[in-house]
Amino acid sequence: KERAAASFNPELLTHVLDGSPENTRRRREIENLILKDPDFQHEDLNFLSRSQRYEVAVRKSATMVEKMRKFNIADPAEIMWFKKLHLVNFVEPVGLNYSMFIPTLLNQGTTAQQEKWLLSSKGLEIIGTYAQTEMGHGQSGPLDLHLGMFLPTLLHQATEEQQERFFMPAWNLEIIGTYAQTEMGHGTHLRGLETTATYDPETQEFILNSPTVTSIKWWPGGLGKTSNHAIVLAQLITQGKCYGLHAFIVPIRELGTHKPLPGITVGDIGPKFGYDEMDNGYLKMDSYRIPRENMLMKHAQVKPDGTYVKPLSNKLTYGTMVFIRSFLVGESARCLSKACTIAIRYSAVRHQSEITPGEPEPQILDYQTQQYKLFPLLATAYAFQFVGAYMKETYHRINEDISQGDLSELPEVCVMSRSLLHALAAGLKAFTSWTTNTGIEACRMACGGHGYSHCSGLPNIYVNFTPTCTFEGENTVMMLQTARFLMKSYDQVHSGKLVCGMVSYLNDLPSQHIQPQQHTLKSWDGAMGASVARGEGTSTSDHFLELQLVEIAAKNLQTEVIHRKSKEVAWNLTSVDLVQASEAHCHYVAVKLFSEKLLQIQEKSIQAVLRNLCLLYSLYGISRNAGDFLQGSIMTESQITQVNERIKELLTVIRPDAVALVDAFDFQDVTLGSVLGRYDGNVYENLFEWAKKSPLNKTEVHESYHKHLKSLQSKL
Amino acid sequence: KERAAASFNPELLTHVLDGSPENTRRRREIENLILKDPDFQHEDLNFLSRSQRYEVAVRKSATMVEKMRKFNIADPAEIMWFKKLHLVNFVEPVGLNYSMFIPTLLNQGTTAQQEKWLLSSKGLEIIGTYAQTEMGHGQSGPLDLHLGMFLPTLLHQATEEQQERFFMPAWNLEIIGTYAQTEMGHGTHLRGLETTATYDPETQEFILNSPTVTSIKWWPGGLGKTSNHAIVLAQLITQGKCYGLHAFIVPIRELGTHKPLPGITVGDIGPKFGYDEMDNGYLKMDSYRIPRENMLMKHAQVKPDGTYVKPLSNKLTYGTMVFIRSFLVGESARCLSKACTIAIRYSAVRHQSEITPGEPEPQILDYQTQQYKLFPLLATAYAFQFVGAYMKETYHRINEDISQGDLSELPEVCVMSRSLLHALAAGLKAFTSWTTNTGIEACRMACGGHGYSHCSGLPNIYVNFTPTCTFEGENTVMMLQTARFLMKSYDQVHSGKLVCGMVSYLNDLPSQHIQPQQHTLKSWDGAMGASVARGEGTSTSDHFLELQLVEIAAKNLQTEVIHRKSKEVAWNLTSVDLVQASEAHCHYVAVKLFSEKLLQIQEKSIQAVLRNLCLLYSLYGISRNAGDFLQGSIMTESQITQVNERIKELLTVIRPDAVALVDAFDFQDVTLGSVLGRYDGNVYENLFEWAKKSPLNKTEVHESYHKHLKSLQSKL
Repeated sequence: KERAAASFNPELLTHVLDGSPENTRRRREIENLILKDPDFQHEDLNFLSRSQRYEVAVRKSATMVEKMRKFNIADPAEIMWFKKLHLVNFVEPVGLNYSMFIPTLLNQGTTAQQEKWLLSSKGLEIIGTYAQTEMGHGQSGPLDLHLGMFLPTLLHQATEEQQERFFMPAWNLEIIGTYAQTEMGHGTHLRGLETTATYDPETQEFILNSPTVTSIKWWPGGLGKTSNHAIVLAQLITQGKCYGLHAFIVPIRELGTHKPLPGITVGDIGPKFGYDEMDNGYLKMDSYRIPRENMLMKHAQVKPDGTYVKPLSNKLTYGTMVFIRSFLVGESARCLSKACTIAIRYSAVRHQSEITPGEPEPQILDYQTQQYKLFPLLATAYAFQFVGAYMKETYHRINEDISQGDLSELPEVCVMSRSLLHALAAGLKAFTSWTTNTGIEACRMACGGHGYSHCSGLPNIYVNFTPTCTFEGENTVMMLQTARFLMKSYDQVHSGKLVCGMVSYLNDLPSQHIQPQQHTLKSWDGAMGASVARGEGTSTSDHFLELQLVEIAAKNLQTEVIHRKSKEVAWNLTSVDLVQASEAHCHYVAVKLFSEKLLQIQEKSIQAVLRNLCLLYSLYGISRNAGDFLQGSIMTESQITQVNERIKELLTVIRPDAVALVDAFDFQDVTLGSVLGRYDGNVYENLFEWAKKSPLNKTEVHESYHKHLKSLQSKL
Repeated sequence: KERAAASFNPELLTHVLDGSPENTRRRREIENLILKDPDFQHEDLNFLSRSQRYEVAVRKSATMVEKMRKFNIADPAEIMWFKKLHLVNFVEPVGLNYSMFIPTLLNQGTTAQQEKWLLSSKGLEIIGTYAQTEMGHGQSGPLDLHLGMFLPTLLHQATEEQQERFFMPAWNLEIIGTYAQTEMGHGTHLRGLETTATYDPETQEFILNSPTVTSIKWWPGGLGKTSNHAIVLAQLITQGKCYGLHAFIVPIRELGTHKPLPGITVGDIGPKFGYDEMDNGYLKMDSYRIPRENMLMKHAQVKPDGTYVKPLSNKLTYGTMVFIRSFLVGESARCLSKACTIAIRYSAVRHQSEITPGEPEPQILDYQTQQYKLFPLLATAYAFQFVGAYMKETYHRINEDISQGDLSELPEVCVMSRSLLHALAAGLKAFTSWTTNTGIEACRMACGGHGYSHCSGLPNIYVNFTPTCTFEGENTVMMLQTARFLMKSYDQVHSGKLVCGMVSYLNDLPSQHIQPQQHTLKSWDGAMGASVARGEGTSTSDHFLELQLVEIAAKNLQTEVIHRKSKEVAWNLTSVDLVQASEAHCHYVAVKLFSEKLLQIQEKSIQAVLRNLCLLYSLYGISRNAGDFLQGSIMTESQITQVNERIKELLTVIRPDAVALVDAFDFQDVTLGSVLGRYDGNVYENLFEWAKKSPLNKTEVHESYHKHLKSLQSKL
């Protein structure tokens, strides 16, 4: 019905999204492996209490470990494999939906490495698959931080001796660890952490203390009930002097009984918006002593007498944060794609009201207002897919350049490409996660009343996605990081140097007063198509906007610097402009990457449908920011009018392809977790079946009737 | 600390919000009555399962009924009081957070009536208080629809005989009823309902059927487990002919045992995003017979032989829908005010990062980006408070005009004021609920990581508010209703007639080409202040925007009408423009009402602080829609630049008053339900106390450890 009307074969588009037909094949193979494994049967967590959900999650983690053992992954060779890969870890503050670590191994390795991991060991494949599939469900587990942070940190920061002591027990799950960084009163700003580790040379121990209520460790995943060890970040004090943050391995529960140790107060931080199955925890330490050897001393050291030995370099590994943020861009794309899949499929199934009286209720998807809600989001989901893929590629390319040492061979002006990626990852993480966050809710509300039921799957997608806006760097802080880079580049151009890469549009700055372009939109639109065809990638007028916003922010910053007492105060008083400049920059990057992607596509039917989406994404962005475009005289009023008209035309053009476009995301029903978004469109019967499973339906008559209502009725 | 810095006394502002010091006093009195009643002790539902929450809700409802009985409200005089007031009911599709009915009585009566109800009967006061306070918590209860829909419908549509038969048992809770309208496949569009009631003259019964899966009644609150009767809306078929929707009283559970009756399938529809304590239900009927006398026959009738007797008028009562939608505008204001209170107080408590290196971490509220997130929302909350108050007053004024029959004395041109209110209520319900919906989430994310915990109270405010966007008329549909009125008014002006009230700006249409105003913003801003002072209420330039958007929509509609086969198709193809015109209109109304409110305030310090908020609300709206203002040449580019500068200045001006401004909303801590938003700012210690109550902390070691982890550890 809907699918027959499409102008293209969605399978071909799926190949584009996966990168190649081979990738599609392998992804499906892995997915099916786990989806068909009876040990990993998917339960509907919606019907369970938090305690039950936690138990399911622990059970699944345990099953995974059983599988590992069954396939004998505890042998030293395989552990070496794990050790080698520890670089791909991540510094994670707040209950990160990890399940990221092992998929990372799968995603981030070279093809040769992937071959090895995937094909050489059945067991690893299953772990990888498990984690990847769970991640596909947006689910988190109590062992996430054990695998994702505790083990990698051990490998990264522990001495050889410490690795001997802790790694094998941790690998075997005798030691279950987590990574305790954030405190109740302190998040993004690491230097503000208050936990102290004071060295006592007499006993050769560190005395750990949570001196205030705000210093209680708060949020780490798996800390509440699951872990018996934690890597604790604390201010190191020795010989009366504070040397800043260092990491310590702290036993928190007794082996064998799992009871909290004396001096340790540990527990669950309570129910949250989502992440029900995760025991995010708190940890309070009162003069709690650990041996000197439990400080992670690969870099900095404290000698037995208390002498502090500085690390050679106290820089964090480049790449870790960049990697996670790049990953989160892809995660945004996945979640928005899921939400669009559900909302668009259900809008094709759902009939409501009437356009013309007397005729049957039309599909909701035929209403222009519904198309206007969903199709720009669909276009955005595709844009983010390509942005995510670009970030992943760039990260690897730069990392390979570094490891091959050919950094010096790059043209001088482009040495900053690494810091550019760093800045880009911050901004794009914020830009894509904010957009996705509101987009998921827009999709949910576009499903009408049923969107509000957990049967739609959308509330879960939302609550598990929304922390992305605050963790791994709060979004506004991220936007300001990108802005700092833009301002630096701006200064550089002003001092006569050229900049390259994604900010090269700033090189156009000297010709500041851009003339309004007098050609009509059709020709502009055509120009975009032409530039796409010629390989220029993006429209000519588009980047003038970022240019202008960067300039406004820079000028306002200069003005404030002149008037205010300090540069820092000026920065704060310009920050609203700075965030806007970053947003415009990120939007520019997304449009540019999307239109560049079009050039790589051979298949005409796919190129045509993606071009429509790219155009919609770009024009919708212009329409929503028409003020900025007009104010800079980047576009004329009549062009804006044409943009708005063209958007409405595009809605009609995309309509017949809409269902096929979401099919191409290739989510299996169990991954979507949505009755409304079922592939077969058989929504209503399954909705009824789903509702019957509600725990309130377990008994015909709820006990409250007997307890509270019946007595009222009989008392009369 | 924060409070000492304020430029005004928040108590005085509270009086403005309540309408008078007397209203403030009475509101507090009522609140304290219930908050201090040990029988209504507030429990933290966050720690309970859905089944437990449902039970708490049933228990509370039962307690309320006990109180009623204790105070002997079952006496006939008091029931008459209830009967008289039944007009204030509401037609409600989807799980409305009712708890609205009784507060309505309290809010909507004349002062004399309120005196009577509140003071004459201790018992009624307690019911009213109960409901109002529960509503303050955003909580719903299983008996909501019994009180809110079932009883009023009985009074409104039942014959005398039926009232005799059903009212007293329902009042005494022998009959517990709900109102079953929406079906699984049918929401807003009533004519699409599929449930049938076929009359059988032989047995003088109606045979009720749910002929398809989509016809299953779905969503009614209290239907799943609580009710033993439902008022069912069904297509009436008699003598082979369908007469459209009629209401029937349908017994669904057996009295005494509460078991579903044969032919009835009833249950809970499953977990939702929020409303955990509400048993929204489904109802499927298979050739289920009810006596002829169970059709509500006050208006239409079916004679024993099956003859259908038409009702005298088949118009729904004017006012019901308008009343609910007006109420929801106030509800938006309340929820946004709550969210702002939490986020602003916590932002004053929370310290993070640094503006100037080396200095202590500043309060989050000192960051410009944080102010830019929260202060426009604060201004919006105030605007919506005044819009809500206006809607309530206007509703009453018009209703009184109607009842006093002096409608004919109004100038001819203003007869449409009733349909204006109708149109306004639809649009403003959509406008305020959309804004509030995103605003609550913006507040939550402005609280950083802790916003994600249920301790912030914000997730609950959000999930219980968000249905407002889809129920009582889906928002986009509501916006289009307003647009229909705007288009009608536009046509009227074009045909030479004048329009009045909130759309009177359309009278300016003939002078279509408005010249850009050359004065700078300072003078514009001054002009607004001056016009406020002079009593003109709003800025001169502001309404040109709506004028223009209405005109664009109208012209696009005309163009489409010329090109398309039908008016209806043209309407659909213009609907994006139409929604935009409505939004602009609603924003105009809000600005206008806010600035008119300023004139009524005598106290200088209050007027000054509210003027800043009003200005911020208005300028922020311009800034966000700068494209529209520029495109219509309503404002120049340099004016827009000045608007943006002025907004940043206002953030700094409002900063010292921010905490006092949220204090003036006068929410008690228990009503906010937020650890972060506590009045005393003692956040962190209470956060720790709160977390300790988490159910996962009931045992030191969770059973999952013994079940799943321990065996893994020992198996090695």
